Amino acid sequence: MSEIQSRKQDHIDIVLNRDVGFPDVTTGFEKYRFDHVALPELALDDVSLETLFLGRTLALPFLISSMTGGPDKAEQINRNLAEAAAELKIAFAVGSQRVALENEGAGGLGKTLRDLAGAIPLIANLGAAQIRGADGPDLAARAADMIGADAVFIHLNPLQEAVQTGGDTDWTGVLSAIEAIAKSGITVAVKEVGFGINGRVARQLADAGVSIIDVAGAGGTNWARVEAARVKEDDRHASIKAQVGAAFRNWGIPTAEALVEAAMVAPDATLIASGGIRDGIEAAMAIRLGATLAGQAAPALAPALQDPEKIVEHFTVLGEQLRTACFCTGSKDLAALRTARLRGLDAP
Amino acid sequence: MSEIQSRKQDHIDIVLNRDVGFPDVTTGFEKYRFDHVALPELALDDVSLETLFLGRTLALPFLISSMTGGPDKAEQINRNLAEAAAELKIAFAVGSQRVALENEGAGGLGKTLRDLAGAIPLIANLGAAQIRGADGPDLAARAADMIGADAVFIHLNPLQEAVQTGGDTDWTGVLSAIEAIAKSGITVAVKEVGFGINGRVARQLADAGVSIIDVAGAGGTNWARVEAARVKEDDRHASIKAQVGAAFRNWGIPTAEALVEAAMVAPDATLIASGGIRDGIEAAMAIRLGATLAGQAAPALAPALQDPEKIVEHFTVLGEQLRTACFCTGSKDLAALRTARLRGLDAP
Amino acid sequence: MSEIQSRKQDHIDIVLNRDVGFPDVTTGFEKYRFDHVALPELALDDVSLETLFLGRTLALPFLISSMTGGPDKAEQINRNLAEAAAELKIAFAVGSQRVALENEGAGGLGKTLRDLAGAIPLIANLGAAQIRGADGPDLAARAADMIGADAVFIHLNPLQEAVQTGGDTDWTGVLSAIEAIAKSGITVAVKEVGFGINGRVARQLADAGVSIIDVAGAGGTNWARVEAARVKEDDRHASIKAQVGAAFRNWGIPTAEALVEAAMVAPDATLIASGGIRDGIEAAMAIRLGATLAGQAAPALAPALQDPEKIVEHFTVLGEQLRTACFCTGSKDLAALRTARLRGLDAP
Amino acid sequence: MSEIQSRKQDHIDIVLNRDVGFPDVTTGFEKYRFDHVALPELALDDVSLETLFLGRTLALPFLISSMTGGPDKAEQINRNLAEAAAELKIAFAVGSQRVALENEGAGGLGKTLRDLAGAIPLIANLGAAQIRGADGPDLAARAADMIGADAVFIHLNPLQEAVQTGGDTDWTGVLSAIEAIAKSGITVAVKEVGFGINGRVARQLADAGVSIIDVAGAGGTNWARVEAARVKEDDRHASIKAQVGAAFRNWGIPTAEALVEAAMVAPDATLIASGGIRDGIEAAMAIRLGATLAGQAAPALAPALQDPEKIVEHFTVLGEQLRTACFCTGSKDLAALRTARLRGLDAP
Ligand SMILES: Cc1cc2nc3c(=O)[nH]c(=O)nc-3n(C[C@H](O)[C@H](O)[C@H](O)COP(=O)(O)O)c2cc1C
Ligand SMILES: Cc1cc2nc3c(=O)[nH]c(=O)nc-3n(C[C@H](O)[C@H](O)[C@H](O)COP(=O)(O)O)c2cc1C
Ligand SMILES: Cc1cc2nc3c(=O)[nH]c(=O)nc-3n(C[C@H](O)[C@H](O)[C@H](O)COP(=O)(O)O)c2cc1C
Ligand SMILES: Cc1cc2nc3c(=O)[nH]c(=O)nc-3n(C[C@H](O)[C@H](O)[C@H](O)COP(=O)(O)O)c2cc1C
Repeated sequence: MSEIQSRKQDHIDIVLNRDVGFPDVTTGFEKYRFDHVALPELALDDVSLETLFLGRTLALPFLISSMTGGPDKAEQINRNLAEAAAELKIAFAVGSQRVALENEGAGGLGKTLRDLAGAIPLIANLGAAQIRGADGPDLAARAADMIGADAVFIHLNPLQEAVQTGGDTDWTGVLSAIEAIAKSGITVAVKEVGFGINGRVARQLADAGVSIIDVAGAGGTNWARVEAARVKEDDRHASIKAQVGAAFRNWGIPTAEALVEAAMVAPDATLIASGGIRDGIEAAMAIRLGATLAGQAAPALAPALQDPEKIVEHFTVLGEQLRTACFCTGSKDLAALRTARLRGLDAP
Repeated sequence: MSEIQSRKQDHIDIVLNRDVGFPDVTTGFEKYRFDHVALPELALDDVSLETLFLGRTLALPFLISSMTGGPDKAEQINRNLAEAAAELKIAFAVGSQRVALENEGAGGLGKTLRDLAGAIPLIANLGAAQIRGADGPDLAARAADMIGADAVFIHLNPLQEAVQTGGDTDWTGVLSAIEAIAKSGITVAVKEVGFGINGRVARQLADAGVSIIDVAGAGGTNWARVEAARVKEDDRHASIKAQVGAAFRNWGIPTAEALVEAAMVAPDATLIASGGIRDGIEAAMAIRLGATLAGQAAPALAPALQDPEKIVEHFTVLGEQLRTACFCTGSKDLAALRTARLRGLDAP
Repeated sequence: MSEIQSRKQDHIDIVLNRDVGFPDVTTGFEKYRFDHVALPELALDDVSLETLFLGRTLALPFLISSMTGGPDKAEQINRNLAEAAAELKIAFAVGSQRVALENEGAGGLGKTLRDLAGAIPLIANLGAAQIRGADGPDLAARAADMIGADAVFIHLNPLQEAVQTGGDTDWTGVLSAIEAIAKSGITVAVKEVGFGINGRVARQLADAGVSIIDVAGAGGTNWARVEAARVKEDDRHASIKAQVGAAFRNWGIPTAEALVEAAMVAPDATLIASGGIRDGIEAAMAIRLGATLAGQAAPALAPALQDPEKIVEHFTVLGEQLRTACFCTGSKDLAALRTARLRGLDAP
Repeated sequence: MSEIQSRKQDHIDIVLNRDVGFPDVTTGFEKYRFDHVALPELALDDVSLETLFLGRTLALPFLISSMTGGPDKAEQINRNLAEAAAELKIAFAVGSQRVALENEGAGGLGKTLRDLAGAIPLIANLGAAQIRGADGPDLAARAADMIGADAVFIHLNPLQEAVQTGGDTDWTGVLSAIEAIAKSGITVAVKEVGFGINGRVARQLADAGVSIIDVAGAGGTNWARVEAARVKEDDRHASIKAQVGAAFRNWGIPTAEALVEAAMVAPDATLIASGGIRDGIEAAMAIRLGATLAGQAAPALAPALQDPEKIVEHFTVLGEQLRTACFCTGSKDLAALRTARLRGLDAP
């Protein structure tokens, strides 16, 4: 097992079994409250949750967020997720294709994925560090082709790289690399991994031709803590890295705040909210605040390790929560939800 | 026992024995504080708590809020409550008459109720789903006649219906159904069941001819959690509903906030505050903020299962707390209480 | 033992042994912070805490607040407190003289008290209920003469009376009774017993000729809970009173807030702050916010039951805390302390 | 062992083993949050943390804050700290030289210290009480010469002195004594020991010719509690002092607040932030808010008792945390960090 593959395996174990959230940072969604409408003048069953994304119609405005699965389980996870996404008619973003690109579609990241996924939006995934340099657009094209993707996610994870031994810590030229890929005609999506994209970066990305931004904010999985949890304490250098990572346990922009800021400065971008979204009510808030889709990674991991049915059930619950939130705010569809009254509890 | 009757029985058991409140939502009354008046210039015994409601004079400004009692206990509960209300001279609203209408006054909801209740205001009860369609006014008239009621409560509980298996989830036409009943000459009261009526709905109701609005806000019993607690986990569909319901554990408009909003937008309606009111001091706050009556359901349930004396003692305590609050704010009656200084603790 | 005497005995036991504070109300002093001055340019020993009160010079700006001691211990308590106050040169207010007036100075409330107290300010004590009617001024004069007092405290305790069986609950005419005493030439002081005097009452009192106001606010001993704790649950009437009292566990105006309001509306009155003052830093805050003296009752009770030395030590600690607060704010005396920077932590 | 030496030994034991922090006061840094920058456009390794201090270039903007070590351990501690500081290229301030001045450089505070420290900035230390009077400048010169220091810290600790038996409590003339030293040509630095320097004092110091101010605010070690913890309860006088000290457990100006105020009123002074700084992110905030260096004492004590390597590791971690904070705010050096977006969480 290569170092990078063993890392991915560790990630899954840590996310499933350890407390690696943000101790004192929340997503910010708990600072909002929908105004309950006791007279919805709707039938619950008539509420439509359909949405258009990447030119395809989704039944529910959800994204299964990028997760790499490690050497043993990646193939099964990706197969399960693709099948479930197809059945649910929701979007599916695969995890980093770095290993797969070097191993011809290993981990289930080959042509069969699109077959399993049917007509749903499929998004490829590359790290910022990989696309720097002249062959960025080429690599992105290969990643997309490999799985028949509609777009390519570039993930920005400077903190995660900084606190891991051997991480990619040269982040010069990333913006122009992104721009080059967008110019090459590929639909580019950009995401963080849980520390959020601030307004200024969102604006830079939109200006560089990025059409989809997933703010991936703080309040869910904290990747500095995940990396710190991997460290064997006897290695001095690694132990320093771990102590550095631990200090960042409360770093990052809460998801709701990042979303509000991005909606303000990048009104033309398609926004996705992810990072700690817990249920369909918070998904409803995200949509109300400007998101087109709400994404989840960690909460979908346990079901993904089981079978497609578990994943379908997981997102069905989320969908019914969202539908009920629409119903109880008198919103017949997501466009109506965007005008529902949402009160900020902090405001005087 | 029919499905609906076994549900009612479950409700009572769950409300009495399980924690089904709102984990992080409060009524909002704790954000207020009366200004203590050390020189009341009153005699405690001279404080009058009398109020006029539905043309009848109450000794205390309280409402026993609607509760259905299930097949076994309904008759006893209703008898106990009617007798106690008569002795206390407070208003009494019966629980849903849906079953009783089909079973000729079963559960103590027949003509004898008025005999027991004497001259106090008595309010019938129907769900929004039942009154839709042409026979709404007729049904409301029958419900009122059945028990000799002064008015009919229509309860709006879209969330409770949405999270229960087989709930009534078509809420189209409810407003016009309410309007039709009001036009037919029946005094119409409308209430939620614990998620609150917001300002916009309060205004719609007033415009439709509703004369009494019970905001029935959040902070007391949470009916999404009550319904979720009923679910046997082995039924997949029901288990999804239960997970939906659980997500709504903090949904709803705090009672005090709903009341303040309703008082602002529907100044001519007679307002009732219920939902989590704990004692006579909170009842005093409700009256200060615009309510004519304060209502309680769940806190009156245990006494109601015992005997009229227990109910009388329960509301006597509430009354003495209210009287003492009047005394210590220098208010000789409820009109004076409405001008007492009440400080919002949030305000700077 | 008369009913009233057994009540007083109970009070002492309850205050010493049970938790009868305010669960969710604080004095409000914790919302302030003195600005530390690292360069005081003073000698600690040169800080003067002297103050003029009732024409006499105190070494420390403290008042031992009124406490009645019950049949067995009153005499000893009063003797201990008088001796200690004389040694400390602080003011001493005796507890209610209601029983003593009927029993010719029982409980140590006779002429010897002034002998023990020496030249310190001594304040008599009567309840509002007793002074109503034509003989109020006469009673007040007798209470003062009995112990050679410099002034008479009238305590206003409407809530305490309202929640106790057989309490005095006719509070009409109290203000004019107070005015009559003031007109008769007696120096009148007025206090609450722990629920606070609000701005409006403070103004009324000042207008009626009251020269000293002790706001005796919420945050320390809660007398509604003390009375509720006395109740034997088997008496139905008493049990109702106890449930009424329990509801008032968070009633009242926080001491610091009452003080700030009184200072604003009654700038000419001599103000005393009492009710939950814990240490010399809070005493310093009280003085900074407008008080001439800071008073304590419950914290002085345990030492008072022992011997004068314990009381002297208790107030010596308080005095040294106050002196150190003056030193660390660069205040050479209490006049300087009144201009020290005190920051309200709530203010933005 | 002299009384003063046994006190110093106690201090070390208490700081290491007892909870002597501020129960309800925090440094205030937790009220801020850096805006995460997902696109830093930097290489982590290119981030420069160099800073100029006292004419010497530091590799990291840190100060080992003054600590006296007691009779047994002082020499070892000072040697360890000097060696580590030299290796780390950070500034080092020795503890009080009061004893060393009387004992010719005892405790490792002689000429060899500068040899160990190499080219790093070294700061001498005297208490305010010692420099009063005509020989202040002479004493300061001797303290500096003794160890080859670049500057002399005068520590202002009026509260610590006030709550200890036999403390120096005459603080008249301290400011002019400081001014005299500055006028004599010595570079004067002034610090508190954990209760903070407020804006007014900072301005006075700057006007008196002080060029370096360490605000040494509240939120870390509380010296009133440390002194209170030393007391043997059987000595009445000492027991009173201990009770005085305990009341000051929440006294003082939070470090971040003191810093912001000093930066505002004394813009020309070189500011150091110390008092409860926990990690490199809080150090980054301090620098962002106006500090040139961030200082730590108590957190460095345990490593200092071991060996130079432990100290090097401790500050290396702090440095890497700071470097990562620069990286994730897109700041290539400390000048850039000073313009990074830092959000105050309290602000609306
Ligand atoms: C097991 C796991 C693996 C992940 N791998 C990737 C990845 O390869 N690429 C990526 O962009 N994000 C990856 N992420 C981050 C997620 O896409 C997401 O941004 C983040 O976890 C926040 O969302 P959450 O709170 O719903 O988990 C991974 C997350 C998890 C839990
Ligand atoms: C056992 C029980 C049964 C109830 N049944 C009804 C009902 O049939 N109709 C109705 O309008 N509300 C019903 N309610 C809701 C109450 O009337 C009330 O609105 C709600 O419980 C909030 O008030 P509370 O916090 O004082 O309980 C019921 C409540 C309880 C506790
Ligand atoms: C044991 C005890 C007896 C008291 N008796 C009287 C009294 O007779 N008259 C009175 O005006 N206040 C009386 N008080 C009230 C106190 O004077 C004071 O206003 C109140 O306790 C709040 O101050 P504290 O928080 O320092 O106790 C009594 C208090 C205590 C603890
Ligand atoms: C063991 C110890 C000894 C100290 N001795 C001194 C001293 O001699 N002179 C001085 O100015 N400050 C002294 N201090 C105070 C520190 O320099 C510093 O201002 C304070 O502890 C706050 O910083 P911290 O929270 O990082 O500990 C001492 C601190 C400690 C922990």
